[in-house]
Amino acid sequence: MSVFRERIGVIGSGSWGTALSILLAKNNHSVTLWTRREELCETLTATRENKEYLPNIKLPENIQVTYELEQAVKDKQVLIFVVPTHAMRETAEQVKQFLEDDTLIISASKGFEIETLHTMSQVLADTLFKGDNSRIAVLSGPNHAEEVSKEIPSATVIASKKRSVAEKLQGIFMSSRFRVYTNPDVIGVEMGGALKNIMALGSGISDGLGFGDNTKAAFMTRGIYEISRLGITQGARPMTFAGLSGIGDLIVTCTSDHSRNRRAGKLLGSGKKLEDILATTNMVVEGVKTTKAAYYLAEKTGTEMPITKEIYNILFHDKSPEYGVSSLMERVRTNEMEEVVDWELWEE
Amino acid sequence: MSVFRERIGVIGSGSWGTALSILLAKNNHSVTLWTRREELCETLTATRENKEYLPNIKLPENIQVTYELEQAVKDKQVLIFVVPTHAMRETAEQVKQFLEDDTLIISASKGFEIETLHTMSQVLADTLFKGDNSRIAVLSGPNHAEEVSKEIPSATVIASKKRSVAEKLQGIFMSSRFRVYTNPDVIGVEMGGALKNIMALGSGISDGLGFGDNTKAAFMTRGIYEISRLGITQGARPMTFAGLSGIGDLIVTCTSDHSRNRRAGKLLGSGKKLEDILATTNMVVEGVKTTKAAYYLAEKTGTEMPITKEIYNILFHDKSPEYGVSSLMERVRTNEMEEVVDWELWEE
Repeated sequence: MSVFRERIGVIGSGSWGTALSILLAKNNHSVTLWTRREELCETLTATRENKEYLPNIKLPENIQVTYELEQAVKDKQVLIFVVPTHAMRETAEQVKQFLEDDTLIISASKGFEIETLHTMSQVLADTLFKGDNSRIAVLSGPNHAEEVSKEIPSATVIASKKRSVAEKLQGIFMSSRFRVYTNPDVIGVEMGGALKNIMALGSGISDGLGFGDNTKAAFMTRGIYEISRLGITQGARPMTFAGLSGIGDLIVTCTSDHSRNRRAGKLLGSGKKLEDILATTNMVVEGVKTTKAAYYLAEKTGTEMPITKEIYNILFHDKSPEYGVSSLMERVRTNEMEEVVDWELWEE
Repeated sequence: MSVFRERIGVIGSGSWGTALSILLAKNNHSVTLWTRREELCETLTATRENKEYLPNIKLPENIQVTYELEQAVKDKQVLIFVVPTHAMRETAEQVKQFLEDDTLIISASKGFEIETLHTMSQVLADTLFKGDNSRIAVLSGPNHAEEVSKEIPSATVIASKKRSVAEKLQGIFMSSRFRVYTNPDVIGVEMGGALKNIMALGSGISDGLGFGDNTKAAFMTRGIYEISRLGITQGARPMTFAGLSGIGDLIVTCTSDHSRNRRAGKLLGSGKKLEDILATTNMVVEGVKTTKAAYYLAEKTGTEMPITKEIYNILFHDKSPEYGVSSLMERVRTNEMEEVVDWELWEE
């Protein structure tokens, strides 16, 4: 239990927003959970359960549910944004009018704003603080909401350029079942969290095609390389991708049945069409938009991203998944780390 | 298909030796597969199937099986050692008398010689070439034998300090279903392949305790850090651990049901005793010896390896798995990359 008791607003009542609210409430904070929909607010308040997004988990008493933004924002010490990426800017703009002068802001949403190719913390800094991100942190790591809400041991990363901000927020989330690490590399942590959803689609495709564990492990390893490559063009530090928000999140998303992106990929691999898949889920499959954003960002920065390119073509140009995988397997043979290898190490 | 047709000896007829023989035979090489046991040699020759270690896969005609070392070694251009680590030195000493002057040597076994804490390529260099390793390469990557033998797309690494050696051997193994990368960092590739078996035990323990995908992903991420730390003390390059033979092999071993080490860990986590587990499998659980070797190596080099230490205590000092996991989760809160973080990056 945290010694301090903070007033925290959670903006967004999907599975992750709900799970974070429960975690914080159990850590003895006072939590206000905002949902856009009035009727969901009423159900949550009455039943104390988010049946649609996080079934069979009770909301503790110190979570107050509201559909009024003012109530979730005013007088809060910490505000956590957990809305779908396409709703981030609009939500932040509405939040702004109620925002206190010293509230710390956390983004817990993973992905890009497709129009600007900005990350969520960039959208928040832009909307709330004219671009300054000194009060902003990012929460990202291998955390399926279902497992966190069941108190299954998990670990995550809080990134902020200010050490004091990162360490304060670390203390708010930390529990004996939820271990929090800090990292100063905000963009690196965000890029890992966003881009891994492309690889989740890809590993689902591999599973859907009936390929094996070897295939998926190779795919994930090559995947984290190209995530790092693109991340570095945006100022990320390479080592961040070796951490919980990089390879850690990639592993959990590519191997767990909880992952929506992986499930969508599996259906693609078994021959289903994208529009049919999206029509049958009420959850957002962030990886589809993320693939498009990463493809544009790679073009813009001249970054080689062979996997992203194949998945982009499968998603948006009807390329067959089999053919996509073959293209990847049959590239010219190569040294493992073309980009980083120290050629001096070789003896001829 | 390879343009060249080489004469290759494979020393060891377990599942991986058999799978590699089949792969090479399909690549149009002439393969001699050596097995220690005369009766297994007869069965393999008669049935063309390694029922015990790789059932339901036919050996192609261009694999000759023998139990005479001379036949497997003489006049071969390439020799692949795939024996259990405890048998490596003795086998190499017997091989030596038949070895041609220009044969290239590959180690495909993962682990340490417990008495010397040497890797397998070091044992081979020591035994065959008075310590010189310029004719030696290491093959390591996320490769379950069962999947490779079924031609499921897989990727691997050939490491040798000589580029010419690595590239020649790359060409021998490469196929449209088996992608081979080269790497000059021999010790790094070996350390990743060996040490990952400790983490496979640990991730099995986590599964056996009923923990989740979040737990395992966090565990694997922290695991590759300490693997890297120990590897670096032996001269390995950090980036190698981000590759197929590092995180790639770790992923496949920690998540696949094919992994013997993970299965053994799962039984430990569900309360079974080590000696009972080892008594019920006819396969070698390399991770048990590897944990001991890594523990000694960490002591010797003053390397912090909290996970390895917990698993060592679970294996050899009857520590309860629950308590081991709790110890790991409840370490003081910390920055994600204490060892590598650039503190200059923080703003106070």
